Amino acid sequence: MSYFPDIPKIEYEGPKSKNPFAFKQYNPDELVAGKSMRDHCRFAAAYWHVMRNGLSDPFGGPTALMPWDDQSDSLDNALKRADVFFEFLNKTGIDYYCWHDRDIAPELNDLSKSNAALEKVTDHLLDLQKEHGKKLLWGTACLFSHPRYAQGAGTSPSADVFAYGAAQVKAAMDNTLKLGGEGYTFWGGREGYATLLNTNMKLELDNLANLLHLAVDYGKKIGFKGQFYIEPKPREPSTHQYDSDSAACLNFLRQYDLMDHFKLNLETNHATLAGHTMLHEMTVAIDANALGSVDANQGDELIGWDTDQFPTDIYLTTEIMLKILEMGGLTTGGLNFDAKRRRESHDPSDLFHAHIGGMDAFARGLKIAAAIREDGRLKDFVDNRYKSWNSGIGEKIGKRSISLEEVSNYALSNGEPTLESGRQEMLENLVNEFI
Amino acid sequence: MSYFPDIPKIEYEGPKSKNPFAFKQYNPDELVAGKSMRDHCRFAAAYWHVMRNGLSDPFGGPTALMPWDDQSDSLDNALKRADVFFEFLNKTGIDYYCWHDRDIAPELNDLSKSNAALEKVTDHLLDLQKEHGKKLLWGTACLFSHPRYAQGAGTSPSADVFAYGAAQVKAAMDNTLKLGGEGYTFWGGREGYATLLNTNMKLELDNLANLLHLAVDYGKKIGFKGQFYIEPKPREPSTHQYDSDSAACLNFLRQYDLMDHFKLNLETNHATLAGHTMLHEMTVAIDANALGSVDANQGDELIGWDTDQFPTDIYLTTEIMLKILEMGGLTTGGLNFDAKRRRESHDPSDLFHAHIGGMDAFARGLKIAAAIREDGRLKDFVDNRYKSWNSGIGEKIGKRSISLEEVSNYALSNGEPTLESGRQEMLENLVNEFI
Amino acid sequence: MSYFPDIPKIEYEGPKSKNPFAFKQYNPDELVAGKSMRDHCRFAAAYWHVMRNGLSDPFGGPTALMPWDDQSDSLDNALKRADVFFEFLNKTGIDYYCWHDRDIAPELNDLSKSNAALEKVTDHLLDLQKEHGKKLLWGTACLFSHPRYAQGAGTSPSADVFAYGAAQVKAAMDNTLKLGGEGYTFWGGREGYATLLNTNMKLELDNLANLLHLAVDYGKKIGFKGQFYIEPKPREPSTHQYDSDSAACLNFLRQYDLMDHFKLNLETNHATLAGHTMLHEMTVAIDANALGSVDANQGDELIGWDTDQFPTDIYLTTEIMLKILEMGGLTTGGLNFDAKRRRESHDPSDLFHAHIGGMDAFARGLKIAAAIREDGRLKDFVDNRYKSWNSGIGEKIGKRSISLEEVSNYALSNGEPTLESGRQEMLENLVNEFI
Amino acid sequence: MSYFPDIPKIEYEGPKSKNPFAFKQYNPDELVAGKSMRDHCRFAAAYWHVMRNGLSDPFGGPTALMPWDDQSDSLDNALKRADVFFEFLNKTGIDYYCWHDRDIAPELNDLSKSNAALEKVTDHLLDLQKEHGKKLLWGTACLFSHPRYAQGAGTSPSADVFAYGAAQVKAAMDNTLKLGGEGYTFWGGREGYATLLNTNMKLELDNLANLLHLAVDYGKKIGFKGQFYIEPKPREPSTHQYDSDSAACLNFLRQYDLMDHFKLNLETNHATLAGHTMLHEMTVAIDANALGSVDANQGDELIGWDTDQFPTDIYLTTEIMLKILEMGGLTTGGLNFDAKRRRESHDPSDLFHAHIGGMDAFARGLKIAAAIREDGRLKDFVDNRYKSWNSGIGEKIGKRSISLEEVSNYALSNGEPTLESGRQEMLENLVNEFI
Ligand SMILES: [Co+2]
Ligand SMILES: [Co+2]
Ligand SMILES: [Co+2]
Ligand SMILES: [Co+2]
Ligand SMILES: [Co+2]
Ligand SMILES: [Co+2]
Ligand SMILES: [Co+2]
Ligand SMILES: [Co+2]
Repeated sequence: MSYFPDIPKIEYEGPKSKNPFAFKQYNPDELVAGKSMRDHCRFAAAYWHVMRNGLSDPFGGPTALMPWDDQSDSLDNALKRADVFFEFLNKTGIDYYCWHDRDIAPELNDLSKSNAALEKVTDHLLDLQKEHGKKLLWGTACLFSHPRYAQGAGTSPSADVFAYGAAQVKAAMDNTLKLGGEGYTFWGGREGYATLLNTNMKLELDNLANLLHLAVDYGKKIGFKGQFYIEPKPREPSTHQYDSDSAACLNFLRQYDLMDHFKLNLETNHATLAGHTMLHEMTVAIDANALGSVDANQGDELIGWDTDQFPTDIYLTTEIMLKILEMGGLTTGGLNFDAKRRRESHDPSDLFHAHIGGMDAFARGLKIAAAIREDGRLKDFVDNRYKSWNSGIGEKIGKRSISLEEVSNYALSNGEPTLESGRQEMLENLVNEFI
Repeated sequence: MSYFPDIPKIEYEGPKSKNPFAFKQYNPDELVAGKSMRDHCRFAAAYWHVMRNGLSDPFGGPTALMPWDDQSDSLDNALKRADVFFEFLNKTGIDYYCWHDRDIAPELNDLSKSNAALEKVTDHLLDLQKEHGKKLLWGTACLFSHPRYAQGAGTSPSADVFAYGAAQVKAAMDNTLKLGGEGYTFWGGREGYATLLNTNMKLELDNLANLLHLAVDYGKKIGFKGQFYIEPKPREPSTHQYDSDSAACLNFLRQYDLMDHFKLNLETNHATLAGHTMLHEMTVAIDANALGSVDANQGDELIGWDTDQFPTDIYLTTEIMLKILEMGGLTTGGLNFDAKRRRESHDPSDLFHAHIGGMDAFARGLKIAAAIREDGRLKDFVDNRYKSWNSGIGEKIGKRSISLEEVSNYALSNGEPTLESGRQEMLENLVNEFI
Repeated sequence: MSYFPDIPKIEYEGPKSKNPFAFKQYNPDELVAGKSMRDHCRFAAAYWHVMRNGLSDPFGGPTALMPWDDQSDSLDNALKRADVFFEFLNKTGIDYYCWHDRDIAPELNDLSKSNAALEKVTDHLLDLQKEHGKKLLWGTACLFSHPRYAQGAGTSPSADVFAYGAAQVKAAMDNTLKLGGEGYTFWGGREGYATLLNTNMKLELDNLANLLHLAVDYGKKIGFKGQFYIEPKPREPSTHQYDSDSAACLNFLRQYDLMDHFKLNLETNHATLAGHTMLHEMTVAIDANALGSVDANQGDELIGWDTDQFPTDIYLTTEIMLKILEMGGLTTGGLNFDAKRRRESHDPSDLFHAHIGGMDAFARGLKIAAAIREDGRLKDFVDNRYKSWNSGIGEKIGKRSISLEEVSNYALSNGEPTLESGRQEMLENLVNEFI
Repeated sequence: MSYFPDIPKIEYEGPKSKNPFAFKQYNPDELVAGKSMRDHCRFAAAYWHVMRNGLSDPFGGPTALMPWDDQSDSLDNALKRADVFFEFLNKTGIDYYCWHDRDIAPELNDLSKSNAALEKVTDHLLDLQKEHGKKLLWGTACLFSHPRYAQGAGTSPSADVFAYGAAQVKAAMDNTLKLGGEGYTFWGGREGYATLLNTNMKLELDNLANLLHLAVDYGKKIGFKGQFYIEPKPREPSTHQYDSDSAACLNFLRQYDLMDHFKLNLETNHATLAGHTMLHEMTVAIDANALGSVDANQGDELIGWDTDQFPTDIYLTTEIMLKILEMGGLTTGGLNFDAKRRRESHDPSDLFHAHIGGMDAFARGLKIAAAIREDGRLKDFVDNRYKSWNSGIGEKIGKRSISLEEVSNYALSNGEPTLESGRQEMLENLVNEFI
């Protein structure tokens, strides 16, 4: 049976099509820069948004129509949702997915029962993966929704709460491994504080690092070869979250000797909430060899919370794909649509409109990015701008084979330097040639 | 002769005084928590704001009345300004000061001439320091105003510009040493980018690290024992500055092996522009043993640029002094008024109103912070909140003497944890008892 | 029986008290500037926050402990909540309260049943009001939570939804009248848009104005003498709300001929989300003779959503009380705590900490404001600053008894004007004398 | 002689061209929706940015290379700048321009001398206009740069300052009339406050309204038929400016009976600083029949000040042109590039890159907007969304021919309404079909 009887399998029809249920840009097996669009993009759907997001907000209840869902915590309901989800993956042609433990299986009144339910659901998911040829991009434990985590999980003032969270991590890792997950993610929505008045930040961060080390050690033990990720976000729900942006995450990983084990899972709307562009955050991460995966969405920069909108801005998708091409492509990570429909888009069909739009936008961004690289003018400009570092005084400074006095003497004899224009406007025009 | 003939020496008159030219809170030799207010606060005046800030803004020219200043680049004018400044220090009772090279001496059309002028002015400053018993908190080189630095200094695309900046650093360090400066600061207002389209971030950061290493090595060579600082600010003038907040600075220092040589000089308005409270930034820095000094000002959080207002908010000064007391007090650093009068406050007397207000606000914050610590209820609450980490499962996790399975087993047997209220409102009320 | 058995009636114990369940500033019958603190403040409690706010957030479920509430939609549960609420009012000594229809009574599966339930609850509330001497500050209809209002109520694209909302307004007005409510409020959390792509703004605003006119006409018919209010907020839940700030509300009221019938209900956190200070919004409203009531809370200006924190900042409460004293005091309006505890403050006792803190902060702000007015220096400074408008060219311009050429001729002969310093820093210091 | 000897006249070469000094989209005489692109766009250059913006910022001096400018206040220098500017207009093919009095002519040490210099420059400009077939879009008086206006012009506390400003307005109007200017603009960068502590907002706004009435009356007297504009901006340089956004301006115009005489001149970056999209501000203005002209630029929404960047975002230019087409086109107004190059783009050639990019972006936005309108799906969706207002209960409400009780009765009998999806994602995808 079909849960989306009115929705066809989404096919590529090209840019002239006016069919809202067709791709106009994303042609999965078309080669771009020598690789299929599918392999460039590694699209993933987020179980929490597709199946579990009722579209409530702080001022109103759920609006999403989910005729398949009886809203119960039963195992049957959970298993049926998995079927619906795989129909969604098939119809959109999305190859990967991501979950939190509590999205796919119910939280019951006892941890061992919750763990058992999780195992049963992942048994079913494993079957579905095999049947439909889908893969798990990453799993994660939800350590922020339950009231026990109101004051943190890895950073809770209560060691018992930490232990409960750690137990969820263990089970989530076990099930990620079982499903062949290519990664495991930590997003710490409660790992921060509401007020510093009652907070011991140093102890909380030591504890958070301990949680990550416990997970790394456990991963080794069980043979988990996937990539660990942490996902930055500056605030919301907490007043401040410790993993606030790429730099804060890298500082934390360096301080606690975790750089070898973690990469970053970057989300556009989290970047902008932190006051950065996604391009900035990606550059910081890539330069530290630490870009792992992308939560693909976009925010409304006039709005101060995480709107998690579907990414449709072609400038944004172009920038993201430029950086991904520059780093040599995604390996364990993907483009995971951590994005939700607006509360007013309550039809099941809106799930399709939303993902089609996001996939087409990235497909177009990919083609534009590849064309800009093929053209070469942008890279040539930048290379030329820094050419003084390749020889002479620049080369010596780069090698640290010169002292401050020597540099000073050079400057004294060299006279007033001249600067070339930065040409920002010309480069923006150049990008527009390709949009 | 006097340059401020109508302004008396500012004396302490106590809280009942209505004399605007008297301290109502700051009584320099009064002991608080066993140390004089003067030694707690280590107030410094910023040469650039007191003597060189004409109060222009992007939409209008200077308004400040400076009858002593002929607006020329002559050495005489520079020397006279120094006299005015020391009268200001004497009348306000501020013990320390800070400068940029180009504040105190003119930039001339040749680097060697600029260096010579700088030497002459610092000869005079040294005499003034001795005569009036004042000290240099820190010096710095201005690597952001001149057009040559439009695209960066340590991060310039031009090695020649880098070299020019490095030469300024050398001279500024030489003169800081000569004046017995207790620190040397790097603030990188152009060390960032206008657009990532034309920027090689990795190369720029490598170069910036090289500049700092050159300075550290040179400091050792010349016997400079002062503390090096970097000062975070997220943007303005650049679109993005690399030293954007405490975490970004620490990440940079860790990456480039500079943690042993640098501490942070934190400014309130830079913290809030980065989306953080000053309390947050101070906590991050102190927990890394990296809080060096404070640029004392406050911002308008509804305004998106650095307003550098004088700090008058008692909540803010209380928080700052709580952290400073908690870390054991300032050592090489101080409370440097990196703050400017509003453009409408164009009288010389406004310089006095502004600094009196800032000094009184910090004096009051100091007394409140000491009283909160003496009272003990706040610290007791926090200690009690984390007590589960002192024994049992918490202690084991803290020592990393337990595995993830063991923690999971503990959680499975332990049942649902209970949480105490975070009591934010009660604690806010408690603080208000002392305001 | 008592629902808060461990909480005493909150009494005034003065500033030396360390009892967290006592007022340190609010002494209801103490006279300030000739009027009791109680009459100055006209404190109100918000039924929705005290009784119905489970403290969930977008990332987690409710945490608040409400042992009296069986979480059902039964009438008995609703009636019991009313009893709990009045015990809360009695223990805090708050004289007024406010409600939405759906806070006090359940929304049932049929509008007539919902209306009937509302009537039954207000029968009980009327008894409780009489028994305890409490009064209704204002009532309102909740036109934002139910999914039918996802796209607006008065601005819905569906006339049927508008009609449903209008029916709720009628019933809420009927019940407000029955309870002797002194006001009736419209807050339009969904009266705006998610995207302009699908929106006819002009039609939506015409319709919203029609709803207000329908209410005004109906109020006349039923003899409702209370004050109508609209409450500005720029966004959240909508991307943009039409009643975004004071100026937008006044523009709307002027355009649709509603200025005679409405005043503004201003909330601090809504002001700051709109980029304004509360002082600004109050000044705009008062200058238009349109300040009606105050939703007393405060926001975190680094956070981009409505945190609705309890107001504890003494600067803020001083400013609010300065403006209220300046306008001659509140008449129909009050200080309504539209504020919620943090999600971590889940104890019933936190309700008391929170309200005690807010009441004490306003009491202190009142006393400071009265002292500043008594002192007179602040007002004198401002009056003197504008004295040129009282005579000569200023008076003529004010009376429009002069032409542009005549003003130009005056300027040509008058020479360069001189300006007095704005003295912002001195005035900020002056305020600190009273904090 | 040529001041831009290396820059050719910019010609249309079409989208395949890689010539940075050619239009790829803007083909002035090409018809779009029945009108030439030139007439749709009515491009204007801003004298202040093209000729007078040295590209300084609050942290550094000017960088722009202006070899023709001797930086003196001489009349000759002013006249030569006019020649350079008209060469710029010719080479870019921009038909209109805008000025402030102090851009085109020097401010001298006496108002009558300044007025005389202004007359001499406009004599020359009139000749140049005739010679080159260029037109003045609007003129304005600069009432914000000189220190006398530090505390406002129309809202100054000093009546003498107001008079000086009014005299500048008179002269600027006289010269605008002389040059056949199609409009006259008020932008009040100092018409606001730095702090409310020292401010009488009501008196200041009364005075500002008086200034506008004086100008309107004078315009009638001298036969000025052009359109008056006010330009909103929320802050910068002031802490708060009274004309903060469209709604605040309209409220002010309604209150002071000025709606018949003024339209709005909207700028994108000012809209976003006020927390609104440009599309929002345009819709508000158009719905009040008050959109006059557009200051074409774009901001960086992560930056809290007015970056005045050149508009290159195709989504933005599409939205602007959609609204302009919807209102029937610009009449007296135009698209005035109130935009500046980045400080790093210091070459004269960057002036050309910048304007070419902006013109091409608007040309492309125009073509996309026309295509969306031709396609019709977007409009049809919106019309259909509101169809319930065309008949039945909706029509009655719209005509106010029904009472609240009657609406309530309708709702009681009508049952639960159903809502159609808002389809935001589908509509965003639809727009992307045309980008
Ligand atoms: Co995410
Ligand atoms: Co998100
Ligand atoms: Co600073
Ligand atoms: Co600053
Ligand atoms: Co409210
Ligand atoms: Co609120
Ligand atoms: Co403009
Ligand atoms: Co602007």
